[in-house]
Order: sequence, then structure tokens, then C-alpha cells
Amino acid sequence: MEDLDRQEILDDVNFLIEAKQAPKLRAIMLDAHPADIAELCTHMPGEHRRYLFDSLDTHTAAAVILEIDGSTRHELIRDYDARRLSSLVEEMKSDDAADFVSELPPELAAKILKQIEPEESAEVRQLLAHEEDTAGGIMALELVAVAQERTVEEAINEIRKKADEIETINHVYVVDHDQRLLGTVHLKHLILANPYTPLHEIMNRDVIAVQAGTDQEEVAKLARKYDLLSVPVVDAQGRLAGRITYDDIVDVMQEEAAEDLARVAGVDEDEEPREASIFRICRLRLPWLIVGLLGEIVAATVLTKFSHALDKVISLVFFIPIITAMGGNAGIQASAIVVRGLATGEIDFSDTLRRLGKEFRIAVLNGLLCGLLIFLVIAFGWKSPSIGVLIATSLMIVIMSASVVGGTVPLALKRFNVDPAIAIGPFITISNDILGLLIYMWIAMLFLEYL
Amino acid sequence: MEDLDRQEILDDVNFLIEAKQAPKLRAIMLDAHPADIAELCTHMPGEHRRYLFDSLDTHTAAAVILEIDGSTRHELIRDYDARRLSSLVEEMKSDDAADFVSELPPELAAKILKQIEPEESAEVRQLLAHEEDTAGGIMALELVAVAQERTVEEAINEIRKKADEIETINHVYVVDHDQRLLGTVHLKHLILANPYTPLHEIMNRDVIAVQAGTDQEEVAKLARKYDLLSVPVVDAQGRLAGRITYDDIVDVMQEEAAEDLARVAGVDEDEEPREASIFRICRLRLPWLIVGLLGEIVAATVLTKFSHALDKVISLVFFIPIITAMGGNAGIQASAIVVRGLATGEIDFSDTLRRLGKEFRIAVLNGLLCGLLIFLVIAFGWKSPSIGVLIATSLMIVIMSASVVGGTVPLALKRFNVDPAIAIGPFITISNDILGLLIYMWIAMLFLEYL
Repeated sequence: MEDLDRQEILDDVNFLIEAKQAPKLRAIMLDAHPADIAELCTHMPGEHRRYLFDSLDTHTAAAVILEIDGSTRHELIRDYDARRLSSLVEEMKSDDAADFVSELPPELAAKILKQIEPEESAEVRQLLAHEEDTAGGIMALELVAVAQERTVEEAINEIRKKADEIETINHVYVVDHDQRLLGTVHLKHLILANPYTPLHEIMNRDVIAVQAGTDQEEVAKLARKYDLLSVPVVDAQGRLAGRITYDDIVDVMQEEAAEDLARVAGVDEDEEPREASIFRICRLRLPWLIVGLLGEIVAATVLTKFSHALDKVISLVFFIPIITAMGGNAGIQASAIVVRGLATGEIDFSDTLRRLGKEFRIAVLNGLLCGLLIFLVIAFGWKSPSIGVLIATSLMIVIMSASVVGGTVPLALKRFNVDPAIAIGPFITISNDILGLLIYMWIAMLFLEYL
Repeated sequence: MEDLDRQEILDDVNFLIEAKQAPKLRAIMLDAHPADIAELCTHMPGEHRRYLFDSLDTHTAAAVILEIDGSTRHELIRDYDARRLSSLVEEMKSDDAADFVSELPPELAAKILKQIEPEESAEVRQLLAHEEDTAGGIMALELVAVAQERTVEEAINEIRKKADEIETINHVYVVDHDQRLLGTVHLKHLILANPYTPLHEIMNRDVIAVQAGTDQEEVAKLARKYDLLSVPVVDAQGRLAGRITYDDIVDVMQEEAAEDLARVAGVDEDEEPREASIFRICRLRLPWLIVGLLGEIVAATVLTKFSHALDKVISLVFFIPIITAMGGNAGIQASAIVVRGLATGEIDFSDTLRRLGKEFRIAVLNGLLCGLLIFLVIAFGWKSPSIGVLIATSLMIVIMSASVVGGTVPLALKRFNVDPAIAIGPFITISNDILGLLIYMWIAMLFLEYL
């Protein structure tokens, strides 16, 4: 919804809420998309949100609650008892139900799992056993699997049986008598085939499946690389365990992108833009700030070791921010490209040496140009050619070292299975600050007698 | 492919290339996914890549060339004439063909458009008329549209007619006699319906369509919000013009995420991880470095104004990196959250004042804690309680001002239609460096007589 549209609708809805017109609200919301209702909810005061939510039918309410973000969702269902929550969970797809239940307090979750239908409860329990950010953790159990010797007509009957339960069906999974995944048939081919053809004759055997333990980032990478609409999940014996649908793949991509951005910016990926609690935000941001502070205390200590030089030539001081900022900038540029290359698979370990050499040559060129510029500014603008030579030399060397550090640290992190995106953030800034100041001060010492 | 697998396959393929076994290569590659062949290509020397590519059949070659990145692709087809390129273009989907042709030199592109089939040429020309990053620029013309009064059986016949030409069909678009889009029918409903039912009885009328001029980022946002597999594109009269498929929507999401990360890190979104030319990379990175350098020259100038204070109390100098780095860190944290909130729609203009107040309260709390920490370090570690009070006070105020700047600048940029992601990058670092140093020096002047 556009901002203006939303404001208008929001005014109408708020009016109905104040007039306590629950039946009217429910009727209006039947025509709205759950994502739009969730968006409206986010933009209204807490009591209104509660009234609107309570007026929804259970099916819509279950869809809406899944679209609402963490802290708002938490606040909305805080006072609901296990019975009301169970009725919502029963309306959810197995993977959504598992996600929803896993975020509740353990006691409440256990109560809900006892109250919902035994079959659904078993499914949710089964999904909860998987790690949250693996293929098993994001897969759904709802799918259409048909034995390979069955015909197209029988597959269509199977779809008919499950059509109510499963909203999105794009493929039929073809399995053997042990439930081992043999291939897939897209609905297009099912429609076009002769009804009496056995599935094994028309199935696509080049099926890309993942194991339940596969990292969700790997799943998203595969889906992107091979343009997959959904990814089947199999167990160690190749038996079909579930499938990951389009919407969940897209969610993973978004999550990973947000995580990268968060790492770069030194914020926690759990901090939500509309997070209500100031204290929680402070707690999430503080560790990064403390790390930064401790790192910069080291940088300050470095400077104290050179206080006689700084004291003698006070103008050395003015260029400290230039040295630290430019080292940081060059390092971040180099690391961002490597992190992106690692994420898309365009760069790997075998490239380490070549990458290092390349970043060095780039840095020599850009270092020379930046050095020349600062020399001109200091020599002619500030009339201090000798300081100009010193600063230009330092800047060049700092840009070179920072670029090489920035370009290789992500590769090293990846080698030790640490998320390389972390390298673009505070860590590279701190190490480049310290290294940059050391280089600057050492060069200044060499120049000192000529200043 | 895993790194190890790939190395093994790569060795085998390189062996076949050196043995000039083109027919064998072609046969092997028929079973491989184009994305895998492209990945192999990226990891082999130029002449090998050329030999492998030349050994592919035209259909596979067309799919592979679309998966290869800019500079490698450019190098690969550099020597091909219009005839060879035309045969590749004829194998492509209309939107891929348009993208491919648009990246060729204008003369060559014109030649190709003359040589390919007139119908396809007209389609490509039609698509080329749209802006690159709009819905029109990423849509394909291949789709199945059926009149509303037609039956399910007729729709299936229409799919049969187009099945060869269109790889992915998940929906049939239902139109009136003027080609105006009325609804969609998913293949699942087509399969389950009675063959003699007219489409208007089973179509989904809540269809979300976009105009050809809609920004591609907006398309991706809609697809994500409403879990859309594909998005139909209509003209001003509501007539069906094309459709944007899943793979292109995912590409846009990836592009936008990469763009955000690039903006944050001060690199150009066009820089590819495997870009061959050092000079091109330098040219892409240099503007950001120059902007940073000029900004920090201002920061240096600020410091010169306070040289008497710095000269008098040299230990003030040691804390310059702490002040600039911490202002930068706090500012980036605040802006990253707002940028993410703006991207997902969780934050909008109406939040500006509330956001400002919230960032201020967060900053007060974190500023106090960081201030306390640095006070303890300086007062007890370095035995200078008065300097400790000065630095702690400055740090607190700098963190507060930087957070408020960081939290509100993205909102201001968005208001003026500038990409808010730019705020997290060099610009906020520079402005916080300058502001932070000013605050620090002003406070130092107040304290000067007590030091």
C-alpha cells in the first residue's frame, strides 16, 4: 500500500474499531490480503490492534499473525491462552506452525502441542527437532508424492485429495516404494501428458534435493543458481522428508541480505526497526560499541608512544583523521567486493593469492592518486611541502596495507568457517585504524629531522 | 558445485579441451546445467573457455552465455560476428534476448536485430523501449493468455500450443476481448476443474499487476509481500503487456541487496568480483575515496583551529581516533536500522520524530555506558581523572549526536528520493568525523584550564 492510501484506510478502520463494529471489520478484512492487514496492525495503537485482531475469523487471524513482526506479535498474543493459540496453530502450514510455536515460552508451547490434533502435533514436533537455519528447519511437510509406477491420472487424483490442505502445488514428487525421491513432474507436464502415462516416463530425473541438515544459505544459493521454485529435502537414505517452498526461499535470501548489512554496520541481526524496547536495542548494539571502544583504546595507546614526535610537530596531529578514515575506506571497499564474491561463489580460496596481488595493484594506483591530491593540498594550500610529502607517503602506504588486509581477511575468515561479512564491519575498521596509525607514526619518525 | 568436485571436473574438462575433443565435450555438457557450465567457464583460462563454448550446441550455448558475468561474457563473444550472435539470440526468451542485445555495441545490436526472425526482432525492440530497471525492462512477453469465456479444456490446449516456447508456466492469464487482464488461474485449479467450466468461473480476481513503468524494486517488494510467483505487467488501459517471472524477481532482490551493500561500503555496484581490468576497478573506487579524502581534509582543518589546545595538552591528541571511530560506529548502527526499516516498509516518514527521539534515548544509555568505561580506563589505567572526565563527556555527546544524525539522515534522503542506503556509507562517517571533532575540541576548550 502507498503511504497515502494506507492513511485513508487506517482512518476508516480506526473509526470502525472505535465504534466497536467487529462484524463489519471481519467482513471487510475477509477481502484483504493478510499481509495488508498485518501492515495496518503495525501502524495502529496497541488496543486498536488487539480489537481488530480479535474481530478476525480464525483462518485469517492465523495468516495475519505470521506476517506480523517479532515484538508486535509478542505483544499481541501476550494475553492469549493456550486454547486460543491452538486454534490459530491448527490453521497454519506445518513449517509456519513450528516457527510460531518455537517462539513461544516452552511451557505454553508444550500446552499447545498437547491441545492441537495429534497428527499435526507430531508434525510440528518432528520439524522442531531440526536446527532453525537448516533445510529441515524451513521445510514444510505438506507435499504431493506419488509412486513412480502410478499414472498421470492417479497423480491428479492425489492432488485433488490434498488440494485443500496444500495451497501451493507446482510439482508432484515421484518416489519409489521406499519413499526415495526419484524425480519431479511439473504441473505443466502433468496437464499435457496422456492420463494413462506412468509418471516415471515423464518425470524430470535431474532433481536437485538437499539434506535436512544443509545450511539454509546453501539452499537459497542453489535455488538462485538453478532457478528453483521449490527444493525437496531428503534424509540420508534419499527418502523424501519435505519441501522448501518459494516464499521461504525468498525469506532466507532476505534474511541473509539483512544479516550481511547488519554485520557490516555493526548491529545485531535481531534488532527490528520497530522494536519497542530501548533497553533491548541498547543491549544489542552495545557489544559492537564496546569492541570498537576497546580497539580504539589500543589505537590511542599507539599514539602515546609517539607523543614526543606529535608534541614537536603539532601539525602531524591534524592528519590523524585523514589517515584513519582513508585506511578504513580503502579496507572496506576491498573487503566488500570479496565478501560479495564469496557469497555468490564467484570467488573462492583458490583465488587468495591472485586476489591479494590484485588488491595490491589497485591500491598502488588509487594510493598514488590520493597521495598526489593530498600533497597538492598541503604543499600549495597549506604551504608545507615537507609535511605534504610525509602525509602523501603515509597515505599511500596506509591505503595499500588497508586494501590488502581488507581483501584477504574475508578469505581467511571463510577458511575458518566464520561469516566473512563480519570483516567489513567494525573489525576491519579497528585493525586498519591501529595499523594505519603505526605506519603513519613510523614514517613521521623517519621524516622528523627534516620537518 | 563444491570446490573439490569442481576442481576434479575442471581437470577432466581441461584435459578434453587440450585433447581437442569437441564432440565429447558437447555430449558431456548436454547433461550439465547451464549454470554449472558457466561456473566451469569462469574458472578456466580464456582460450579453454572459448574452445569449450564453441563446442556447445546453440541451445546450450545461449543458456550458458546468459549465466556468465559481464566482463567474462564480453571477452568471450568479442570476436563473434553478428550471424553467430543472432543464432544465440534466437534461442533466448524475449527478456533475456533484450538484455543481451542491449549490452552489445549499438552497431552490432542493430545488425543482429536485422538478422533474427522478424517476429522476435519486433519483440526485442518492444522490450528495449522500456527503462532497464522498471517492470517493463525485466518482463518477458512469453505467456499464456486466454479469453474469460473460454473453457478449462481450451486453456489447456492453449498451454499445449505454447509449451515448447515457454519453459515455465504456472498461471494462465484470463483476459477480456480487449486483452485487459481480469484474473489468473493457477495450473493446480486448471487440473482440478471440470474441463467445460469457463475460466471466469474459477479465476482468481484479486490479481496484483504492475504498470510497465513501475520500479523493479517495487515489483520485488510486492512479490515478497504477497508471495507472488510471477507478476503480470499491464499498460495504462489495463491490457496485459507481459509477465515478470520468479527468476527475474529473485535477480532483482539480489541486485538490490548487492546495491545496498555496495553503497554502505563505498564501492560501485558495477564492480564485479572477477572484474579483469585493474584500471576499471580503480576508476570505480576512486570517487568514493576522493569524497572521503576531501571530507577528512575538512576534519583536519577543524583540528588546526584548535592547535593551541592540542599543543598545550598533547594527551588530547591520543583520543582523536576514539572520538571519530565511536561517532562513526554509533552513527552507522542507527542509520543501518533505519535504512533496513525503510527498505522493508516497516519505517516511513510519519515515524521521523518518534525515530529521532528513540535514537536519542538509545544513545543516551549507550553513551553513558561507553563514557563510564572510558572514564575508568583513563582515570585508573592512565591515572588522569580530569582527562577521563573530559573524554567521557565528549564521547557521550558525540555518540548522542552521531546516533541522531545517523537515524534521521536516511529519512531525510528518502524524503528527497535519494537512496537512503547511501547514508550508511562514507557520507555519514565523514559528517560524524567532522561533527565529532568539533564537539570534542569545544568541550576540550571548556576543560582546558582544569587540565
